[in-house]
Amino acid sequence: MNEQAAIADLRVNGQRLWDCLEKMAQVGPGVAGGCNRQALSDADARGRQLLAEWLVEAGLQVAVDDMGNMFAQAAGSAAQPVVYAGSHNDTQPTGGKYDGVLGVLAALEAVRTINEHNIKTVRPVGVVNWSNEEGCRFAPPMLASGVFVGVHARQWAHDRKDGAGCRFADELARIGWAGDEPCGQRRIAAYYELHIEQGPVLENENMQIGVVTHGQGVRWLQITLAGRAAHTGTTPMDMRADAGLGMARLIDAANQIALARQPDAVATVGQCRLHPNSRNVIAGEAVFTVDLRSPDRQLLAQMEDELRSRGDDVCRQLGLQMQVESLVEFDPVQFNQECVTQVREAAAMLGYAHRDLIAGGGHDACYISRVAPAAMIMCPCVGGISHNEAEAITPQWASAGANVLLHALLQTAGLAS
Amino acid sequence: MNEQAAIADLRVNGQRLWDCLEKMAQVGPGVAGGCNRQALSDADARGRQLLAEWLVEAGLQVAVDDMGNMFAQAAGSAAQPVVYAGSHNDTQPTGGKYDGVLGVLAALEAVRTINEHNIKTVRPVGVVNWSNEEGCRFAPPMLASGVFVGVHARQWAHDRKDGAGCRFADELARIGWAGDEPCGQRRIAAYYELHIEQGPVLENENMQIGVVTHGQGVRWLQITLAGRAAHTGTTPMDMRADAGLGMARLIDAANQIALARQPDAVATVGQCRLHPNSRNVIAGEAVFTVDLRSPDRQLLAQMEDELRSRGDDVCRQLGLQMQVESLVEFDPVQFNQECVTQVREAAAMLGYAHRDLIAGGGHDACYISRVAPAAMIMCPCVGGISHNEAEAITPQWASAGANVLLHALLQTAGLAS
Repeated sequence: MNEQAAIADLRVNGQRLWDCLEKMAQVGPGVAGGCNRQALSDADARGRQLLAEWLVEAGLQVAVDDMGNMFAQAAGSAAQPVVYAGSHNDTQPTGGKYDGVLGVLAALEAVRTINEHNIKTVRPVGVVNWSNEEGCRFAPPMLASGVFVGVHARQWAHDRKDGAGCRFADELARIGWAGDEPCGQRRIAAYYELHIEQGPVLENENMQIGVVTHGQGVRWLQITLAGRAAHTGTTPMDMRADAGLGMARLIDAANQIALARQPDAVATVGQCRLHPNSRNVIAGEAVFTVDLRSPDRQLLAQMEDELRSRGDDVCRQLGLQMQVESLVEFDPVQFNQECVTQVREAAAMLGYAHRDLIAGGGHDACYISRVAPAAMIMCPCVGGISHNEAEAITPQWASAGANVLLHALLQTAGLAS
Repeated sequence: MNEQAAIADLRVNGQRLWDCLEKMAQVGPGVAGGCNRQALSDADARGRQLLAEWLVEAGLQVAVDDMGNMFAQAAGSAAQPVVYAGSHNDTQPTGGKYDGVLGVLAALEAVRTINEHNIKTVRPVGVVNWSNEEGCRFAPPMLASGVFVGVHARQWAHDRKDGAGCRFADELARIGWAGDEPCGQRRIAAYYELHIEQGPVLENENMQIGVVTHGQGVRWLQITLAGRAAHTGTTPMDMRADAGLGMARLIDAANQIALARQPDAVATVGQCRLHPNSRNVIAGEAVFTVDLRSPDRQLLAQMEDELRSRGDDVCRQLGLQMQVESLVEFDPVQFNQECVTQVREAAAMLGYAHRDLIAGGGHDACYISRVAPAAMIMCPCVGGISHNEAEAITPQWASAGANVLLHALLQTAGLAS
């Protein structure tokens, strides 16, 4: 089977994919129907073992690097750059059954489909499972893909500790998944990652596929406003330096700053603390973080500048002092245009309702795009709920995502004549 | 000495008052120069004992009621209504050396001055020490004056427990200060209370005396806004129900509501909590308290109505649900006009810079004004700082306040011919 028409008719085995998702969900089950398969835990080790068995059954060889990243491809093919698909098999402590693992098992399913139809590709197609994407046990998130692309030094990553003081490298050795291959050495021809949206857009608009064109740039600012703690009853309005009021004005300012840059910018204050946080004491201090995101680097910088300037205004008006600390700064990601086009054309060819989308969170693909052509495919999730055991998708959504992944992979790998 | 001129020249012994304040501050000393003489503690008992010794030395008899309130007056005088002055001798855990105790010891000093000049009054002049004004050990504040005026039932007050589970009545008996006299039975001809301002107004305006005309009415509302917790990166601005943003708008609304009702209204949000309070999760819930105060009952009701209505608007705009719980509701207090006039005239006669003032906090005098003519005198405190070991006043401020108290007492008690 090598003619164009037959290839266009090719579909993954949706039931087999769903069964694998269900089987993997039983490894490190959560307490409320989800999963707890944190990085480098015993459950992660069992999950890796099960995945490796499936990969070998599918005719692939599994290699492991010294960050525990798993790469699977046909024997002998690793000498040339591989077109990889994958994601991460680890979960949050109260994680869902699809975040990450869908991308890994859909990649496996794509390879199975290619092999059982005896399709030969010019470039080999492989599966990757990146270690410790979640970052909940070993901060930061995307630790191993970050090492792969040179954002983090390997030694620094090896020395990351969990809450109990265990080192990443020690835990990786303990569970038996420390490989010899130096992380980052492997050549990647291209990389595709299917992931659940973790947001509400696709479901709300009745879309089956999100064609991810960009990753949001992210800036986290921690703002501390210092005022004067004083009695709420005895301090007249004009003798106050109310840090809580200043915080309120900046929460609203952040909102306005994002609304002025639609459709893609977002800004949020999700965390705050007043001191002394007493009903009848004017807050002498307010500490809060502002999460700013935009897929446009210039807009993102503008957003931060405007927030700082609004902060200066608020401080002048209210007699406060401001300190701003930059906690996180991720540049926006522009995914490879050819890869994005493959995803869009595959969705169109398959007849799926699709739209372009910005990835709002961090993903391994955001890092991999620094060293190889990369793109992401998203499928809806119910209510946009993720990082929660209640996370849910339908078998149809999973199949559609896997079919797009399959066809994008085939186009990029090329059919051997 | 009975002529008018001689009376006008009468002054308290400021040094003796200051010495007593310093001695009392050594009973239940704090860790940072202030006091820890919490209600019904061993330190409170030692403070009561020292006060009782001074009262007896000053020629007074001390009676105690079944809430531990101490009343001191000349022997045989209690059959007729007494003109009392006083306040409370208990402190916060990290309290100052003047909050409360200044009013008690200035009353003692006034009686000493009257007696040593052999002045006879038509109505007897006495000293009172109300139990547990602070409310920090046994909530609510002003517990014993509240029982005295019938706001609280005695049995309910006796059953109040501290953080360790000890009952008020048991602790009162343990320290030996449970009297037989039923609380509230004693007739009060009039009541004056000297207190530090606990606010910045007098010091800022270089005033020695505050003539307290009203007590602020207080309403504490606990507002809960329910939105939808969601990922800050993947949830577009127009698909959010951000409880933190709603809170911010209502903090600002409370501020505007008070600013529109100057000079006396105040409004503050000093306590708040977001849930889950995570940097990259839009708050699904915000809980905060709004402290509204005005000396005008109608304005205070308006303020609450307007805040609720602004809350409804915010909820409509942002897709939130609001619950409002009323935690505290104290009506404004209008002090007795004759007593207030005595205070104002005494300050003028003595040549002290003075201004009318609203008592922003709760005081025993606010309750006592329900059953007897009452007024308050305030003296400045440094930086408006109180409920803090750093609380400070000058000996001159203390003397000025005590002199005004002395002359207001003499005018109300009347000079015997």
